[in-house]
Amino acid sequence: MNKYFPGIGRIEYRPDAGPDDTLVFRHYNAKETVHGRTMEEWLKFSVCYFNTFRYLGSDNHYGERTHQRSWEDGSRSLDNYKRRMMAAFEFFQKLHVKYYSVSDRDMAPEGENYDQTNTFLDEMVTLACDLQRQTGMKPLYYSADLFTHPRYMNGSGSNPDAHVFAYACAQVKRSMDAAKRLGAENFVFFNPRDGYQSVLQRQFFRDMSHMAQLYRMAAQYKDKIGFRGQLLIQPKPADPRRHQYESDAMSTMHMLRHFGLDKYYKLYIKPAFSRLMSRPYEHDVYMAAAYNMLGCVDASDSWPEFNGTSDICAQDMRDATLVMKCVLEQGGLQQGGFTLGGRVRRESTEPRDLFHGHIMAMDTFARALRNAARMISDGSFSRSIQQRYSSYKSGFGERVEMGNMTFDDCEDFVRKNGEPMHQSSRHEHYENMFNYYISPPRQ
Amino acid sequence: MNKYFPGIGRIEYRPDAGPDDTLVFRHYNAKETVHGRTMEEWLKFSVCYFNTFRYLGSDNHYGERTHQRSWEDGSRSLDNYKRRMMAAFEFFQKLHVKYYSVSDRDMAPEGENYDQTNTFLDEMVTLACDLQRQTGMKPLYYSADLFTHPRYMNGSGSNPDAHVFAYACAQVKRSMDAAKRLGAENFVFFNPRDGYQSVLQRQFFRDMSHMAQLYRMAAQYKDKIGFRGQLLIQPKPADPRRHQYESDAMSTMHMLRHFGLDKYYKLYIKPAFSRLMSRPYEHDVYMAAAYNMLGCVDASDSWPEFNGTSDICAQDMRDATLVMKCVLEQGGLQQGGFTLGGRVRRESTEPRDLFHGHIMAMDTFARALRNAARMISDGSFSRSIQQRYSSYKSGFGERVEMGNMTFDDCEDFVRKNGEPMHQSSRHEHYENMFNYYISPPRQ
Amino acid sequence: MNKYFPGIGRIEYRPDAGPDDTLVFRHYNAKETVHGRTMEEWLKFSVCYFNTFRYLGSDNHYGERTHQRSWEDGSRSLDNYKRRMMAAFEFFQKLHVKYYSVSDRDMAPEGENYDQTNTFLDEMVTLACDLQRQTGMKPLYYSADLFTHPRYMNGSGSNPDAHVFAYACAQVKRSMDAAKRLGAENFVFFNPRDGYQSVLQRQFFRDMSHMAQLYRMAAQYKDKIGFRGQLLIQPKPADPRRHQYESDAMSTMHMLRHFGLDKYYKLYIKPAFSRLMSRPYEHDVYMAAAYNMLGCVDASDSWPEFNGTSDICAQDMRDATLVMKCVLEQGGLQQGGFTLGGRVRRESTEPRDLFHGHIMAMDTFARALRNAARMISDGSFSRSIQQRYSSYKSGFGERVEMGNMTFDDCEDFVRKNGEPMHQSSRHEHYENMFNYYISPPRQ
Amino acid sequence: MNKYFPGIGRIEYRPDAGPDDTLVFRHYNAKETVHGRTMEEWLKFSVCYFNTFRYLGSDNHYGERTHQRSWEDGSRSLDNYKRRMMAAFEFFQKLHVKYYSVSDRDMAPEGENYDQTNTFLDEMVTLACDLQRQTGMKPLYYSADLFTHPRYMNGSGSNPDAHVFAYACAQVKRSMDAAKRLGAENFVFFNPRDGYQSVLQRQFFRDMSHMAQLYRMAAQYKDKIGFRGQLLIQPKPADPRRHQYESDAMSTMHMLRHFGLDKYYKLYIKPAFSRLMSRPYEHDVYMAAAYNMLGCVDASDSWPEFNGTSDICAQDMRDATLVMKCVLEQGGLQQGGFTLGGRVRRESTEPRDLFHGHIMAMDTFARALRNAARMISDGSFSRSIQQRYSSYKSGFGERVEMGNMTFDDCEDFVRKNGEPMHQSSRHEHYENMFNYYISPPRQ
Repeated sequence: MNKYFPGIGRIEYRPDAGPDDTLVFRHYNAKETVHGRTMEEWLKFSVCYFNTFRYLGSDNHYGERTHQRSWEDGSRSLDNYKRRMMAAFEFFQKLHVKYYSVSDRDMAPEGENYDQTNTFLDEMVTLACDLQRQTGMKPLYYSADLFTHPRYMNGSGSNPDAHVFAYACAQVKRSMDAAKRLGAENFVFFNPRDGYQSVLQRQFFRDMSHMAQLYRMAAQYKDKIGFRGQLLIQPKPADPRRHQYESDAMSTMHMLRHFGLDKYYKLYIKPAFSRLMSRPYEHDVYMAAAYNMLGCVDASDSWPEFNGTSDICAQDMRDATLVMKCVLEQGGLQQGGFTLGGRVRRESTEPRDLFHGHIMAMDTFARALRNAARMISDGSFSRSIQQRYSSYKSGFGERVEMGNMTFDDCEDFVRKNGEPMHQSSRHEHYENMFNYYISPPRQ
Repeated sequence: MNKYFPGIGRIEYRPDAGPDDTLVFRHYNAKETVHGRTMEEWLKFSVCYFNTFRYLGSDNHYGERTHQRSWEDGSRSLDNYKRRMMAAFEFFQKLHVKYYSVSDRDMAPEGENYDQTNTFLDEMVTLACDLQRQTGMKPLYYSADLFTHPRYMNGSGSNPDAHVFAYACAQVKRSMDAAKRLGAENFVFFNPRDGYQSVLQRQFFRDMSHMAQLYRMAAQYKDKIGFRGQLLIQPKPADPRRHQYESDAMSTMHMLRHFGLDKYYKLYIKPAFSRLMSRPYEHDVYMAAAYNMLGCVDASDSWPEFNGTSDICAQDMRDATLVMKCVLEQGGLQQGGFTLGGRVRRESTEPRDLFHGHIMAMDTFARALRNAARMISDGSFSRSIQQRYSSYKSGFGERVEMGNMTFDDCEDFVRKNGEPMHQSSRHEHYENMFNYYISPPRQ
Repeated sequence: MNKYFPGIGRIEYRPDAGPDDTLVFRHYNAKETVHGRTMEEWLKFSVCYFNTFRYLGSDNHYGERTHQRSWEDGSRSLDNYKRRMMAAFEFFQKLHVKYYSVSDRDMAPEGENYDQTNTFLDEMVTLACDLQRQTGMKPLYYSADLFTHPRYMNGSGSNPDAHVFAYACAQVKRSMDAAKRLGAENFVFFNPRDGYQSVLQRQFFRDMSHMAQLYRMAAQYKDKIGFRGQLLIQPKPADPRRHQYESDAMSTMHMLRHFGLDKYYKLYIKPAFSRLMSRPYEHDVYMAAAYNMLGCVDASDSWPEFNGTSDICAQDMRDATLVMKCVLEQGGLQQGGFTLGGRVRRESTEPRDLFHGHIMAMDTFARALRNAARMISDGSFSRSIQQRYSSYKSGFGERVEMGNMTFDDCEDFVRKNGEPMHQSSRHEHYENMFNYYISPPRQ
Repeated sequence: MNKYFPGIGRIEYRPDAGPDDTLVFRHYNAKETVHGRTMEEWLKFSVCYFNTFRYLGSDNHYGERTHQRSWEDGSRSLDNYKRRMMAAFEFFQKLHVKYYSVSDRDMAPEGENYDQTNTFLDEMVTLACDLQRQTGMKPLYYSADLFTHPRYMNGSGSNPDAHVFAYACAQVKRSMDAAKRLGAENFVFFNPRDGYQSVLQRQFFRDMSHMAQLYRMAAQYKDKIGFRGQLLIQPKPADPRRHQYESDAMSTMHMLRHFGLDKYYKLYIKPAFSRLMSRPYEHDVYMAAAYNMLGCVDASDSWPEFNGTSDICAQDMRDATLVMKCVLEQGGLQQGGFTLGGRVRRESTEPRDLFHGHIMAMDTFARALRNAARMISDGSFSRSIQQRYSSYKSGFGERVEMGNMTFDDCEDFVRKNGEPMHQSSRHEHYENMFNYYISPPRQ
């Protein structure tokens, strides 16, 4: 496999490489043990087929395709899809990852009708199985693309037309079959078109109840076929819809719980989407983890000043460190991992730019893993948290947590103990301590 | 009562008033029947004591108090609080509203200690009861102010210090006692300091579980004392905290449901806060209503271009119409109403400016009520919605809603029926139809 | 001309039409005189060829084309471009406008090389001239598309490669030739790719100085060929670039002035772009007008909660009224006009949706014109402004404006006159007065 | 001087200090030479009196003062101001800085009238002179506070009332006198209230022309009294005003140039304000530098997800590195320096928290200086820029820069040379290279 990325070999760990040398890992050392596991076990990096191999540098009607890809003629022929897949596996190999993340439409085009579409998909899945055998690759997740085809323009599971709903379900069925064949570790639902453009034209509750029906059937079908992957949902607030129903971790968890589905699903958090709601990058990672629902992470970013989707390759080790701290504290992502969901800019036109983007993202999260591991093993933060919440460890606080206090008990406590001491949160002290792990001084 | 706002009489409905005449209602006609109820029954306008009588035109350390208020010496003496209350009731009367919204700290200052604080409060509640009797006024809601005092700087119910938690509970207890004495129709929890500045210093789940304990005790105490008001929570995403736990309707409903509290509480939605999360103004009103949890609305706004809290007096009839449409469709707010939560700008220094701001907000929502009523009685929008979702009325769609379909059924349906028709959403047609109700042509 | 929009006739003014009737104007009455001119003279509405006829409902690699257009096969053949142009002129006629706004690439595809490209363009311009003769249409503005072709991905005038710079200049030259043939009233520079993705890779001043060279040559060439159109620049802050150099009115005016070009150019303001910088919609219209540089306006909008480009059809009469007030106060836009720059949503797939979107935008600005005319003829706002600034009419204030005062004079004045009176800005009073014009009460 | 911060000594450089040890510098080593100058020469750190000593943890009417300050009784007595100044100088000394940044109202309260105000100021300036002599401290800049007093609520230089304008001028006059006595190296104009709340109530051009008159008089007065400081203006887009006239570097430079004042003024850039306009932190630093107008920098930050002013202490070394790269490339800030403009959070209540915040900001910029120095001395970025713009070094490109080309020359060039090569910008390669300097691998 050395046809589509000539002149680029397997990317190696070279911590001593110079500044111009950006085709090496400076931080990511797959087999090195950090905090009790190898880096590749913690991170389980996965290449995003969609943003890496389907994005070709177009910019809607504002800009034509710019990316040079020897394997890609832009057509929907199976030949083109096969070349693309060969190029993809060469890329995976050279990048030194073990997982990729892919949907049915990434792999195979739509045919003339439902049956031909399925035939195409089967053929491409067969090729993927071969390539997986040769390379040891596996899907971190599989997905049904319920958003590029015009039939889904008004939504998939929440579409006001039950016919489209049926089509979405049928497509998910076949995708789950494919996921099983390929041994995917997770199955992801993306629903970027399930939301509203205007409250005048939608019924919120009804739409969400329909989505819940789709999720219910998916959980049943999973059991039926014996697919072992974890079901995941990716929340997203907006863009392309004016607003999506599963806008963030809390809203998605509320839907799942309201419709009794929370035990079948976990969340696939893309922290960059938190920026779309004016929140810090790490927000939804912590919120999902708080309710034990964090299943997988998208390791991309967006320009912090922009509240749309920019899907840049992760570069900020500070933000990534906060994410890794959460993941380490919950003992890893189990079946989940980190999808490299960024895409290179439209102006980064050469195939080698794909490597630069992925390497940067992987090094960003690898360094973040090292940072977080040091933070945790030093214990400074966990000690301070213990201290901060110590009043809940015993006495009055402990009884509050046990849930058997009343307002009268509380008033008695205040009468006895008076005004609480005002305690500085020492915010800047802790932020500065955090900087110690992000940018250690030269010693 | 004509001491503090001399020269201003009771505000009258005068639809024929000229442009400069801004001390009249042009749209709000309290006793006029619209869509089956009087305007005052639908709207139940309430003056916000906090933003109307506690904000004095300061701008933190960036700007000193500017507002001229003959009754207000800025001190914490009971005399000052009494004069303020007299002025407030004069204002209510002249503005022609029946409700006000108030907290314990709006009414009375903190004393030297817990007991003195309660004594002050009791004295002021007694005065309020008198004034209510004279005027027929009543609190739309009562609240405990758990955010101005330094003890709450790191949160109230979610404070890492159980002592502060206890204090918050004791304060809520006394506030609920006051609410009962005053006949408040609702009791609101504002928790603007219950969130995080940094994930490094907080335990999300633990914090939320503590808040849930407070809510649980409040529901119990309500029963114990026989208080009939509806318990409400106001979600807010951020500001002053970097992020608050109850950030929006969905997150608050998730918390309530997770901790088994959803049957005791409803939501008090301030649509202006939707703008802080890059959402349309009306978003959370519809989202709360979708789950039957919309209890009350804050009829203020914020500058649409700014993602902080600006608390301007509502002025946009377009946005307000979307809110009123939702409220009418759910048959009104029952015990809830519309709090006039805006505050006049720092530069609007005269007492009469308080009238201008309130009149504008009331007229904005009154006109919105008229618009929405016409939209609903014409039926154009409801017909289009019926049409749009018609495939769920019978056959396959109906069975989906009944919840007994499988992926195999869906695939069969697709095999038989092929590709769904692509149906234009006709977005611009409906927006233009909406404009018909917002700005009817001169006929 | 009744081939591509069958079943739709000329759009008429029908102020009495019902709510579902959205293929009529409710407010726009072309020949009606308002504030001394006909509505079509004030507004000079122009259809945007790019967003109306080149956008086909794609959503980059996230969504395929959805729009049904009988004339459009998506190819780059001249035949396709000719059919598109025929459809466009049929649309213009039926919509009842006199202007369209168009670029070289809207009209004709690129050829194999520079010469063939020019040949194609000439042929299409000839067809356009014919169609103009038949219909009386004219370009409000002509433009060179310096952003869709891959060569411009790193900028046009500011491209770090002088070869691309040369190409951009050559393309502008030919476009100005075409503009002259077509009798365009303005020539617009859009530079959406002239900015930076990263400060690491650009030299700001050098880039802007190159842009200035292009502008200088354009002004010279205009004189050389005797083109009478007004040269215009459209500022835009960002998207697709991370940041564009001509980000708003002030920055563009600064560039022009710094390089001595301000007398040759005016600004083409798209108020929706103000939202991208967290400013009110009307901001840049007023800022350009303040320096006598407002030449043309894009009458589209964007969703207020989103800080990217959404290009929706204008619908908010409140915002539009503020724009029209400014335009009326400066006596109109002379050679400029209002381009209908919105595009229908991806889900609005039928040709008739193009009419709904344009009619809504035209009615929005037509109603805004009526509102603004009433505001101005009533004189309430101008009187209040006169009053507010009255201290500058004589005495000390007048001498300040004449520019011959010193700090010592000022101090003397303060010594004599003491503390200034604090004057309420009466913000809410004026906003409420504004509402009188936006939503007059039913009388 | 060891009265107000007992238990804290002079902060020392201790690169080997542990994570909990946050009362030491890890990166800032004042006397160490980096890139040819000592760190303190490059950085000229200055404590911001306003945010450090006037902010006391209030949160408008939402939150009472929380900060514990033994020297501060919150009153306007001269005694209180004197204690505050003593505390400030103790703080400066212990923090190991040489500069502070201060305004007239930071130093002394307003009196009963203009003359008493000046008397108070003189007395406090005398004390400051004494303390400066004892400590070697000096103002990096002096300023007139034209925003806290109610008289300025509608603006200072742009106030519609000429009387207020006069007062502002008189106050600036006295402040410039004080600046001279104290040997301030710069004089800064902050104009946070000079802008608009509504276009209905202001005349933009007139307002800006009045501001220009004030600036003109200030430049004259500077000459008259022989004050040697650099005049600076700080742009700010919004907050507290809905919009300020001097919103960013380009708008301020446009005003200055339009009114012929650009040679007298430079800009004092607060990069955190760029975030308020949806721009990267470094934007305005580079934009001001491009036009040779960068005079001083505010080394604070704001939460990236929030578009209001949050004034946090700088903590992000990535962003700071981009700023330092620009400053080093222009050879430093001459008379300017870096003001530590952040303020500790309301919850950071202890005096020692002031140290934590300042140390973090200083270390952030010190480390950024080290990073930038390495970037520049390695030369990787400057080589790539040279390469990227090489076509402008000779031949066609060189002639373009000389300004004597025409469109005909450009067309000839294109005819001869055909289509330009499409060159990848290699964005991710350069971002990854940048990361090499931000987070060097452990070797």
